Amino acid sequence: MDINYIHENVLEVRDYECDIQGIVNNAIYQNYLEHCRHMFLKSIGLDFAQLHNEGKDLVLVHADIKYIRSLKSGNKFICKLALQKVRRLKLIFIQDIYIENTGEHILSAKMTAACLKDGKPSLDETIVDIIGSHLDFEL
Amino acid sequence: MDINYIHENVLEVRDYECDIQGIVNNAIYQNYLEHCRHMFLKSIGLDFAQLHNEGKDLVLVHADIKYIRSLKSGNKFICKLALQKVRRLKLIFIQDIYIENTGEHILSAKMTAACLKDGKPSLDETIVDIIGSHLDFEL
Amino acid sequence: MDINYIHENVLEVRDYECDIQGIVNNAIYQNYLEHCRHMFLKSIGLDFAQLHNEGKDLVLVHADIKYIRSLKSGNKFICKLALQKVRRLKLIFIQDIYIENTGEHILSAKMTAACLKDGKPSLDETIVDIIGSHLDFEL
Amino acid sequence: MDINYIHENVLEVRDYECDIQGIVNNAIYQNYLEHCRHMFLKSIGLDFAQLHNEGKDLVLVHADIKYIRSLKSGNKFICKLALQKVRRLKLIFIQDIYIENTGEHILSAKMTAACLKDGKPSLDETIVDIIGSHLDFEL
Repeated sequence: MDINYIHENVLEVRDYECDIQGIVNNAIYQNYLEHCRHMFLKSIGLDFAQLHNEGKDLVLVHADIKYIRSLKSGNKFICKLALQKVRRLKLIFIQDIYIENTGEHILSAKMTAACLKDGKPSLDETIVDIIGSHLDFEL
Repeated sequence: MDINYIHENVLEVRDYECDIQGIVNNAIYQNYLEHCRHMFLKSIGLDFAQLHNEGKDLVLVHADIKYIRSLKSGNKFICKLALQKVRRLKLIFIQDIYIENTGEHILSAKMTAACLKDGKPSLDETIVDIIGSHLDFEL
Repeated sequence: MDINYIHENVLEVRDYECDIQGIVNNAIYQNYLEHCRHMFLKSIGLDFAQLHNEGKDLVLVHADIKYIRSLKSGNKFICKLALQKVRRLKLIFIQDIYIENTGEHILSAKMTAACLKDGKPSLDETIVDIIGSHLDFEL
Repeated sequence: MDINYIHENVLEVRDYECDIQGIVNNAIYQNYLEHCRHMFLKSIGLDFAQLHNEGKDLVLVHADIKYIRSLKSGNKFICKLALQKVRRLKLIFIQDIYIENTGEHILSAKMTAACLKDGKPSLDETIVDIIGSHLDFEL
């Protein structure tokens, strides 16, 4: 299956992200994935912190993460992101992590986010719509 | 569906675990879930750090997490754990988080772990077997 | 020197807080210390998150931390807190961490916090004053 | 006072590093500072994880951190590092953080590290000596 990635970030493992096993702790990958989603939003002109201040939040409702291999101290890796709209208030981010130089597949995730306005689901100008209006392809 | 929980921990949100949205950051729940799994292991006499030193590791291969509601500053919550063996080298942990006093369901997760011996899948005395031998019910 | 501790919390090391060296990562101790300060505030009826929502913030301006020994996986420890007012807008928290059962001294810290109202130092009903009014001894 | 910085890294605040106050949490700066120290070591050919595997550890014994201003979501910043040897087994890292484009001074730290061999202070080929031998100036 070909995934139509629309955003990517290159990051590097920081030693404090590794745990007793000497590998990146599982929870840290969610940090990487979140950071990649926020960098994507920023790349289309949307600032997560500012949206929050306007009462608009994108909250994760489902994380489905397959851990394939482990990242270790010193690894440089690419976080790639694709997205699809499921319905007006939800987005699915397809996110993959690969080792930068070898291309080894580290992690594959399907992250579903919902939109809230003032803490509640809302049909009125949600982040999903704002994202849609900033993309040059149809969700 | 009734889940046969075999372990639970009560924890409390710490303010540094909350993010810009004022709620516990998504990645932090994986910390809670891991801590609960390790406390379960400890309760049956298995020490995660020591097992690692003996070359035996339990690594997460799949996290399937449904975020139902958010935890906030000050919330006390219960992490409950059930488990089932899928096959010799894999375990599925069913994990739920509830607000302690109200019973509100916060999160529901299915976490699949695989056993490694010296970094490789191994049929020889894996953590899964050790866990099985410490339980008073059949996996 | 006898320190007049006015608050303490018992916590337990969580495995994800340990790093490649198998010991609690240095940054994590600041989490423990912050949590202990916030629990102290809570014990006198002050809620950090709520104070922030009212525009009142206590921000750290100086951390002076002596790392004496390391905490390891499984350690239970006590965080103890004393405090002294330096002047109207500043507080010094004296914080120590000890292993619970052996009393071993792990860490000694002097944490100076300043009060902000709407992001600026303010003489008007600062958190320092609120804290002072809730204590049964003079700062 | 002019500080003779010998290493610097440019980093960017990640949203998950910010807390309820909307600013980078205090503990996170220690992550930044540690990462910068490890990147410095790497730049002179020393790998922290590998040194640990050889039984050589650099452990923090004293952190003296002045928080001057706060980093916020989206900020790019420079971590600068200078170092001086205090005696055979100890190093002092002088570390500063500045906003990248404005040069605003965010944080100033003096971090003292000690060398351990197999968990104990040792006069025999410590990390301090190894670092010294890789520098083109005298500690």
